[in-house]
Amino acid sequence: MKNYIITIGRQYGSGGREVGIRLAQKLNAEFYDKELLTQAAQDSGISCKIFENFDEKKANSLMYSLSMGNYSFTGDTSKPLALRVYLAQFDSIKKIAKSENNAVIVGRCSDYILKDCKNLVSIFITADSNDRIETIAEREKLTPAQAKSVMTKMDKNRESYYNYHTEYKWGVADTYDLCINTSKSGIDGAVDLILNYINNL
Amino acid sequence: MKNYIITIGRQYGSGGREVGIRLAQKLNAEFYDKELLTQAAQDSGISCKIFENFDEKKANSLMYSLSMGNYSFTGDTSKPLALRVYLAQFDSIKKIAKSENNAVIVGRCSDYILKDCKNLVSIFITADSNDRIETIAEREKLTPAQAKSVMTKMDKNRESYYNYHTEYKWGVADTYDLCINTSKSGIDGAVDLILNYINNL
Repeated sequence: MKNYIITIGRQYGSGGREVGIRLAQKLNAEFYDKELLTQAAQDSGISCKIFENFDEKKANSLMYSLSMGNYSFTGDTSKPLALRVYLAQFDSIKKIAKSENNAVIVGRCSDYILKDCKNLVSIFITADSNDRIETIAEREKLTPAQAKSVMTKMDKNRESYYNYHTEYKWGVADTYDLCINTSKSGIDGAVDLILNYINNL
Repeated sequence: MKNYIITIGRQYGSGGREVGIRLAQKLNAEFYDKELLTQAAQDSGISCKIFENFDEKKANSLMYSLSMGNYSFTGDTSKPLALRVYLAQFDSIKKIAKSENNAVIVGRCSDYILKDCKNLVSIFITADSNDRIETIAEREKLTPAQAKSVMTKMDKNRESYYNYHTEYKWGVADTYDLCINTSKSGIDGAVDLILNYINNL
């Protein structure tokens, strides 16, 4: 089997992270989701807590920047902190793609950042809203109404962040090589389909 | 193998029709694309020419209806002709799903019309813009600039028609079970992937 950098965009609660974990296990590949934040924090010297605060959230308004104290952070203050966090993740994603033979990277505009990478396979994972609400409610101990609200907010965050930092559109079919709805395929079905897909590229 | 009704939405020039033809051959299934227009014309008594004029074009403005002479057509004149054409296609799609064990239906909101059909598999086919422009230019003897213009217009037509007649969004990943970019997979690769997908459902 050839080596691939597989990026996974995902709707909140769709099981995209789980697909990525199982895929990485089957491919004996490194897996990066929240792990990316730690890596970027280590590489950039910015605290990990700050990466968590800014994770996949667009923060480009002056009011937001001021309220987050973006301009008062020590070190390189020539750029808003949100942008510095994005750039540190950008560098880490590039570094991973260069150093790893096989890797699975979840979210954080990784498909766009690696768009010129020849062995890139770009996946997007969806699921039906009702299934996602059930998953989120169970996982985060929420009522269905609360889960729906969190789901909508998280997807909005991811969409804004992605559309702000890239020329593509988040969640639109032609942004990706392959989009799979796990309500139909199941998590393992999605993993098997991706494996079949890359085996035949 | 179980029986499936497979619907294929597609960007203009992406090879969606070809994927459908080859898939229908492999499944020994009936194939409906333009064939749907003939069937709907036969069933409804509206002329085939009129179906071709209205094919996947939204036509809900009064000005457009008047300019197309929608209200002067003989027969049931209680509804605009564009709507009657849509409803005739709606009936034909429902009839196909009921009478065929296996069928592949291209476009015309068939995924939405058959959304409650238990053996429905809904696919969307994309391709990179440059590849689509090349395909269209070659197929329709156009310059790349002309092909790009036709591509944009046709996709706009399909998107408007779909979004007008359904509650879903055309070309958005979570509208479909599976979305495949043929620039990466190739036409045969997409067919094989769909076969692998339905074999494992």
